[in-house]
Amino acid sequence: MRTDPWTWTGPPETRFENPWLRVETRRGLSPGGIEASYGIVRFRRHAVGVLPIHADGPVTMVGQWRVPLEAWSREIPEGGIEADEDPLAGALRELAEETGLVAGQVRPILNLHLSNSVTDERASVYVAWALTEGAAAPDHTEVLEVERVPFVSLLDDVAAGRITDAITVAAVLRVHHMAITGALPEALARAMMSPPPGAPVP
Amino acid sequence: MRTDPWTWTGPPETRFENPWLRVETRRGLSPGGIEASYGIVRFRRHAVGVLPIHADGPVTMVGQWRVPLEAWSREIPEGGIEADEDPLAGALRELAEETGLVAGQVRPILNLHLSNSVTDERASVYVAWALTEGAAAPDHTEVLEVERVPFVSLLDDVAAGRITDAITVAAVLRVHHMAITGALPEALARAMMSPPPGAPVP
Repeated sequence: MRTDPWTWTGPPETRFENPWLRVETRRGLSPGGIEASYGIVRFRRHAVGVLPIHADGPVTMVGQWRVPLEAWSREIPEGGIEADEDPLAGALRELAEETGLVAGQVRPILNLHLSNSVTDERASVYVAWALTEGAAAPDHTEVLEVERVPFVSLLDDVAAGRITDAITVAAVLRVHHMAITGALPEALARAMMSPPPGAPVP
Repeated sequence: MRTDPWTWTGPPETRFENPWLRVETRRGLSPGGIEASYGIVRFRRHAVGVLPIHADGPVTMVGQWRVPLEAWSREIPEGGIEADEDPLAGALRELAEETGLVAGQVRPILNLHLSNSVTDERASVYVAWALTEGAAAPDHTEVLEVERVPFVSLLDDVAAGRITDAITVAAVLRVHHMAITGALPEALARAMMSPPPGAPVP
């Protein structure tokens, strides 16, 4: 059955809202006939992320404090865009604001639903290369730590659970898949997959 | 600065709650000194997922209607566990309930924060093999469509944006990375990466 198996018995009711979220509940009967109130967190903004690869192989990453986790998180440049903004344009704007980088080449790599049991949050994720440097202009509500990290170190960090942001984890793994399947320029893929400077020679 | 850059001026206040969520707001000064109310969606449950690989290569997937998206979604077996339940035990329980599969071998593969700008939701993700079949016992609130899918078809679906659930996308890509880096048993990796039955021979 690929249609909604719930029988809704009431309209959606807004229970909380702010500039980022709207929480609504709706009464209905579950597929098993149990009466329940389904709570949904609707996101006003659409998440975007872009993994920027430098010609010699490293990736520019952004570290920031994530208030809900009460923890520092290392991530690809990410942001939220308004519902009527083009996701690609928004991703490139976030890249430039957070890192100063301007992308000569960009490709869509992932469409994600981040937490689909309770939220409708979507993410559009890109890979970018042929980068040039401009001036960063971070949002006044953010404190960012920008770093260049060898791609293979990012892969290790993802595999070891040291990088946990879902958009970043999926993007790093997808770009790895692209690099080894010929979906990126060959010289770029070779530079990305080379060992970081100072790594022991096997 | 790897500590909280906000200056909180009030205590967290609960604005909405149900058995799955608690929404709280807290007043504070952002790093730029702007007064704001930060809304956080706290999840009572911890997400778990497990990618089960059969000895001959395919993966058991679960399709279900996701109410917040108003759409059908194809995913690895997933669920939510209570905060005090062991994530591995919870993942294996969800696997058995949704698919009837019992895993002889299981490994942790990913720790994810799914939507860290606004929520504290975490996911623990596993890969399982050496599977045996028992009887499924799905939750009465779920209508599930269980299917076995060639692993390389899943990779294609992820790359093409036909599979969008973030846990599933990250798990498929991580298991691909494991298969080609010798982190899975060799015969299993070879079976997973072989073309699906009926695929054109290059």
